[in-house]
Amino acid sequence: MELSKRQEEIVEIVKANGPITGENIAEKLHLTRATLRPDLAILTMAGFLDARPRVGYFFTGKTGSELLTEKIKKFKVHEYQSIPIVVKESVSVYDAISTMFLEDVGTLFVVDQKSYLSGVVSRKDLLRATIGQKDLNQLPVHIIMTRMPNITVCKKEDLLIDVAKLLIEKQIDGVPVVKDSDGGFEVTGRITKSTITKVFVELTADER
Amino acid sequence: MELSKRQEEIVEIVKANGPITGENIAEKLHLTRATLRPDLAILTMAGFLDARPRVGYFFTGKTGSELLTEKIKKFKVHEYQSIPIVVKESVSVYDAISTMFLEDVGTLFVVDQKSYLSGVVSRKDLLRATIGQKDLNQLPVHIIMTRMPNITVCKKEDLLIDVAKLLIEKQIDGVPVVKDSDGGFEVTGRITKSTITKVFVELTADER
Repeated sequence: MELSKRQEEIVEIVKANGPITGENIAEKLHLTRATLRPDLAILTMAGFLDARPRVGYFFTGKTGSELLTEKIKKFKVHEYQSIPIVVKESVSVYDAISTMFLEDVGTLFVVDQKSYLSGVVSRKDLLRATIGQKDLNQLPVHIIMTRMPNITVCKKEDLLIDVAKLLIEKQIDGVPVVKDSDGGFEVTGRITKSTITKVFVELTADER
Repeated sequence: MELSKRQEEIVEIVKANGPITGENIAEKLHLTRATLRPDLAILTMAGFLDARPRVGYFFTGKTGSELLTEKIKKFKVHEYQSIPIVVKESVSVYDAISTMFLEDVGTLFVVDQKSYLSGVVSRKDLLRATIGQKDLNQLPVHIIMTRMPNITVCKKEDLLIDVAKLLIEKQIDGVPVVKDSDGGFEVTGRITKSTITKVFVELTADER
């Protein structure tokens, strides 16, 4: 929402002088308390100002954009994660590539004999391996994977926005959603750049 | 912003009866016009209702989430596009893969002798080619690329959200930003799932 000039003046006054009573704000603007009532109601309901009885109005520190994006900051990983595609360490690079095409994913998670996460393989890793020109049927995937503890993971209660940041910072296409277990991480989901792109699209499709 | 119960009632009344005067809304709620004034002001300023003199209030058709995401619907491609990485049709698959690693991108755009867009190559296309086990140095990239007119493109004035939708619908990682020219498309930029993920992250970092 866009604020009117008067509402912006009110926000500035409260920023500088808060907590401040409605009467004092009105005084500073040379207006009556009654005239200001709708503006104060709007600013309070929209979250710019907060009001406490016998104290007055104070600035919440939130700008328009922050209020708009607070919604996004509530998205949790488990609400958006997809099914993880998992292969065993012993699988060949050739079979890993086949699995990737079959499942139509860009990232595979590799698990050890106890089914705990031991590695991650991206299309980029596989592409690098294939130009190495070795026999892809003989090369086990654990040789070329990114290995624990160098894997970026997330938990189901993490914020989606934090995982999106990780994807950008680490320059990776996807991360596994994991669950702590006695002997390691169980893989329970995946979050990828496709997930984030879908969420971005859905943001504007809400409540149509 | 969250609406109060009364404000929601007002929206419902205007939805069903609009255009409707403030007096008539007050009547339906068994309240005075004066009591409703702040609520009507809030609903109008926040964009839920619109008011026309001598006509009354009418519903803008916008829900809370729609208003929140109107901002996103203003993003244009040219504000967010990255530099396109381009190769010639005659380049070998091996060299295309090298370029992809060197430039650290997931999608290459292929141009003809006049530098017009003729194809697109993704990591997936290259991976498929490498397991074909041909000599990658002898195989020209135009054999394996997705070819015009089967390429999804966008223009710099397009909405970012529409390109994000295309990425999801077409299940592709990136699209070229093109400019119409006499003999074809000039490639001027690229939008990828990484672009969208970055924009998603930046949404919540605004105005800190």
